[in-house]
Amino acid sequence: MGEFELIRKYFAAAPCAQGGEGIALGIGDDCALLALPVGEQLAVSTDTLVAGVHFADPCDPFLLGQRSLAVAVSDLAAMGANPLAFTLALTTPTVSADWLQRYAQGLNAMAQRCGIGLVGGDTTRGPLSLTLTVFGRVPSGQALTRGGAQPGDVLCVGGDLGNAAGALPLVLSQRTAPSAIAELLLAHYWSPQPQLALGLALRGKATSAMDISDGLLADSGHIAKASVVRLVIEQQRLPLSAQLLAFLGEQEAQSAALSGGDDYVLLFTLPPVELAPLLASGWPVKVIGRVEQGQGVVLVDHAGQDITPTNRGYQHFHEAP
Amino acid sequence: MGEFELIRKYFAAAPCAQGGEGIALGIGDDCALLALPVGEQLAVSTDTLVAGVHFADPCDPFLLGQRSLAVAVSDLAAMGANPLAFTLALTTPTVSADWLQRYAQGLNAMAQRCGIGLVGGDTTRGPLSLTLTVFGRVPSGQALTRGGAQPGDVLCVGGDLGNAAGALPLVLSQRTAPSAIAELLLAHYWSPQPQLALGLALRGKATSAMDISDGLLADSGHIAKASVVRLVIEQQRLPLSAQLLAFLGEQEAQSAALSGGDDYVLLFTLPPVELAPLLASGWPVKVIGRVEQGQGVVLVDHAGQDITPTNRGYQHFHEAP
Repeated sequence: MGEFELIRKYFAAAPCAQGGEGIALGIGDDCALLALPVGEQLAVSTDTLVAGVHFADPCDPFLLGQRSLAVAVSDLAAMGANPLAFTLALTTPTVSADWLQRYAQGLNAMAQRCGIGLVGGDTTRGPLSLTLTVFGRVPSGQALTRGGAQPGDVLCVGGDLGNAAGALPLVLSQRTAPSAIAELLLAHYWSPQPQLALGLALRGKATSAMDISDGLLADSGHIAKASVVRLVIEQQRLPLSAQLLAFLGEQEAQSAALSGGDDYVLLFTLPPVELAPLLASGWPVKVIGRVEQGQGVVLVDHAGQDITPTNRGYQHFHEAP
Repeated sequence: MGEFELIRKYFAAAPCAQGGEGIALGIGDDCALLALPVGEQLAVSTDTLVAGVHFADPCDPFLLGQRSLAVAVSDLAAMGANPLAFTLALTTPTVSADWLQRYAQGLNAMAQRCGIGLVGGDTTRGPLSLTLTVFGRVPSGQALTRGGAQPGDVLCVGGDLGNAAGALPLVLSQRTAPSAIAELLLAHYWSPQPQLALGLALRGKATSAMDISDGLLADSGHIAKASVVRLVIEQQRLPLSAQLLAFLGEQEAQSAALSGGDDYVLLFTLPPVELAPLLASGWPVKVIGRVEQGQGVVLVDHAGQDITPTNRGYQHFHEAP
């Protein structure tokens, strides 16, 4: 038996590969088989993480296992889908039992938190990279898309912005921070929490939704374009953690919130009437702006002046050469 | 707009990305949405091809486009599934418009032949590799698996074996061959034809099935193990093309058929009573052996003597370091 066959057996024995509701056939045949309840559709998303591009190499394989799955599952949250299953395509230059074990433990931890099962994949030799394809269930016609924002809606996010971008100098060992600050920022970077429950709560309420992976300004542009509307973001409403503010100062923290990537919190639009019940139920929803007729995204200050940065392109870790 | 955003738009505009039956939402949102008819299950398979490991680099991007999809769709054929959709995760070190255009043309050509639509994926910078995840539909309970072969069944394949392995010295420019030989062998390597129609025809008839990707002996071992049976392969029944025989001679041709990879023809078991109707309908089915009680795979000569090679491991191109 080759070492890659051993890897396959290793993942097949992982706790998250032991099946579950909706998984009619798991790892081990030419295909896995998924079953959907009548009246539901399957949501599908694929994400690739490349070593040295999307994550530092070497890095802690447990944290990488958590992060690689969380990033992909966040797309299910953004559609208001219930996680069902995922496949993992792992390309690795060498086979290290210790690395694999810790990677699989991180993957398992996130899989159990999200309620999602590993049903297959591929294992190949080559430069380290990971491609995860995630599957979720959503009642037909109820998926949240980017295309329904209406003038008059409020623009909201599901939590603080910029923490993961703030963590980047720590991840890359370019700076240090007191542990009270570093712990929060690094947790956001390495263990983003897909906002699955919030996604479900937004079904039938949000007019559009997506998850923020490339930064608030860039991703807002996707909703503005798909919905053919203009989004106005109010700078003073950007939710910033005390730790991010202490670490970066106000100006840099705002920049991280606007253009930093890897937040993986939901960005969505709501008719104003839907807002109060969500807040009353305790959802961590923050209004950051509004939807108007027009196109594009503008950032305004407390006086309503347009202060949109001309360069929205954040040098995302994964845009590095 | 970054160059990777341009690639995404490029694929989104491809003919094979224009939706189809069962595709409720295609490229462009956080997830694609697939709809399944009542009573059907979704078959899912993921395959990765790494440059320099699974294919020579550089190579013709049109041929790579065809091959990368065919290899993945072959797993749907092996389950008796109808192709529905696929995602493409493309990692590339540089963005070449010419390369992308020709790759997409090859992908399109195979997608149209297989009736499958591109619904999403990811595009990232890094060492060249391709991960395709394919989705198919199959009536609940009718998928062909590796696990149902019964003693008394005949062991069959869906066509000639060893042609793709025979093509390898040509692909790697280690040898040359007359065009009448080279054309057939290279066609099997670069444009494998997923046996989708045969897979559908085998529903309710075959007791087990898979596609041959790692070589007949190795893949027969998977059916033997999953079905808890012994498979007996008769050497003189191995179907070999005249071109392969002319190129390699009988002994090497048999070796390519037994241990060469990349055939992508179906390997399956049938009760003998099911055989005649399939042959009468014109399916290219060849009996190569039988199923017995026991375990493992044995190769026998015309006198019934065990001539199983001790080293079954073929040095598959994708097992190269």
